Amino acid sequence: MTLAPLTRRAPPPLAAGARVALVAPAGPLRGPDELDRAVANARALGWEPVASAHALARTGYFAGADEARASDLNEALRDPRIDGVWCLRGGYGAMRVLDRIDWSALRGHPKPILGYSDVTALHGAIARQAGIVSYHAPTARTTLSAFSRASLTRAVSRGEDSCGVAERARVLRPGRARGRLEGGNLAVFAALVGTPYLPPLEGAILVLEDINEAVYRIDRMLAQLRLAGALHGVRAIVFGQCTNCPEEADDGARTLDAVLLELADWLRVPCLAGVPIGHVAEQWTLPLGRMAELECDERRVAVV
Amino acid sequence: MTLAPLTRRAPPPLAAGARVALVAPAGPLRGPDELDRAVANARALGWEPVASAHALARTGYFAGADEARASDLNEALRDPRIDGVWCLRGGYGAMRVLDRIDWSALRGHPKPILGYSDVTALHGAIARQAGIVSYHAPTARTTLSAFSRASLTRAVSRGEDSCGVAERARVLRPGRARGRLEGGNLAVFAALVGTPYLPPLEGAILVLEDINEAVYRIDRMLAQLRLAGALHGVRAIVFGQCTNCPEEADDGARTLDAVLLELADWLRVPCLAGVPIGHVAEQWTLPLGRMAELECDERRVAVV
Repeated sequence: MTLAPLTRRAPPPLAAGARVALVAPAGPLRGPDELDRAVANARALGWEPVASAHALARTGYFAGADEARASDLNEALRDPRIDGVWCLRGGYGAMRVLDRIDWSALRGHPKPILGYSDVTALHGAIARQAGIVSYHAPTARTTLSAFSRASLTRAVSRGEDSCGVAERARVLRPGRARGRLEGGNLAVFAALVGTPYLPPLEGAILVLEDINEAVYRIDRMLAQLRLAGALHGVRAIVFGQCTNCPEEADDGARTLDAVLLELADWLRVPCLAGVPIGHVAEQWTLPLGRMAELECDERRVAVV
Repeated sequence: MTLAPLTRRAPPPLAAGARVALVAPAGPLRGPDELDRAVANARALGWEPVASAHALARTGYFAGADEARASDLNEALRDPRIDGVWCLRGGYGAMRVLDRIDWSALRGHPKPILGYSDVTALHGAIARQAGIVSYHAPTARTTLSAFSRASLTRAVSRGEDSCGVAERARVLRPGRARGRLEGGNLAVFAALVGTPYLPPLEGAILVLEDINEAVYRIDRMLAQLRLAGALHGVRAIVFGQCTNCPEEADDGARTLDAVLLELADWLRVPCLAGVPIGHVAEQWTLPLGRMAELECDERRVAVV
């Protein structure tokens, strides 16, 4: 028996003139230049940026204390004049504030929330606690490539298919699948296991990426998801880029692709690796929670 | 209301002449020399070592395939002529075989099982699935210091207090506590969250150590434990060594000690850091599951 896919409400697209809060829920900006770039990025997309109170704060490796970061995010969610939230950067720290966020505000007034990497924690919580589509997208401080800007615009401003064909992707296990887009940064995603912030994966196309992780660590994260029973009902595995993920020569067959294929074989689902998602200049924006189709042979992902 | 501590059965001590299986549940040995050293270590403790079938196997970063490693461990647990199991090394891979282990064999015939680092996954599963005391101890391939050998002997061969006073330990939050010893390598421990292999921590003195982790990663692992509700009822935090855990100068107050103190403050429990546990030459052997007392002011841990 196949369960019906879990549906999520999509927030309204961010049209021209939309007021977008620039919030730093995790790591700090390096300086005002990065905030300036975020402001320019938002304006170039036709939006009116609104920098949050602690956008330039720094406390250790956080953009301000937990209270400050949670407060900025809650302000943006509660303010009826704010139409969307674009996270300034990842780093680490979003998961620390998940139990301080006003999810009922987001449920009552769904808004597009954008970011990736550490923002994966926020996406998981949004899925689980608010039932809203959110956007795995470059952070606001990024120097946006034309490729990334085009995909982001299609996804967030128009609600159109923001993926496509990834010519250089690797078909690890052929096949096709249809399911909800879920996932994000694997290390952060795995760190949500056991908490009330891991999105349900029944009926999902699970999309993952990572940076600075040895293959055995990727293996361990996937093992946690498997042993926790979190992968039940996953319909496909799509991996983006693993940036600076060393494969040791003497580890023989335990390459990243071998580890991914092993998981896909165990799940008996198709697997495509190397799509433009992750810590790279050319990124697809993914509407997490929306339905998509994977056609491995064509190396295609389509939001439907 | 304080719940009664969860008690675990202690296996019989390993007396002179005990037959001890040398098993590699995770990473491979570098070569036969390491197995020779493990054999010599066991004999120096008065035991009769029995190398498992795949003790020298290598498959990528594993000591043989999952089937082989699980088979070696199950052989040792099921064989009535084997009195104990000393893991040859850590690395990564024990958690991958936890769902293949014959826990009923261990419940039926409790045996001391020794190791640390990646073997933390085995300890967690032993606690949860078999209810047996197991030993956080140097791996068999280690060049044993006199300090480590003395503590190991007290714990495993005599069932005596194997801890003591750690002169150089840092009192992060004063106080005293009494509880079951639980824990191990933090990265591996956090990777058990959400699985059926995380030991219950109600009434525990939680002892942790790690290697090669930036402070923000330690922070993330502790956040996962906290958000998963796994820390409810923890009575004290004891941290061993964090070997090669860089603290970035510009991260200000987010040092390892600050992160540990923050957690101890949140739990309102005593916290002692820097005890001889971890990836260092001088290690206490910890009988996980046995009761212990922590006296922060005296920098003392005592198995009682």
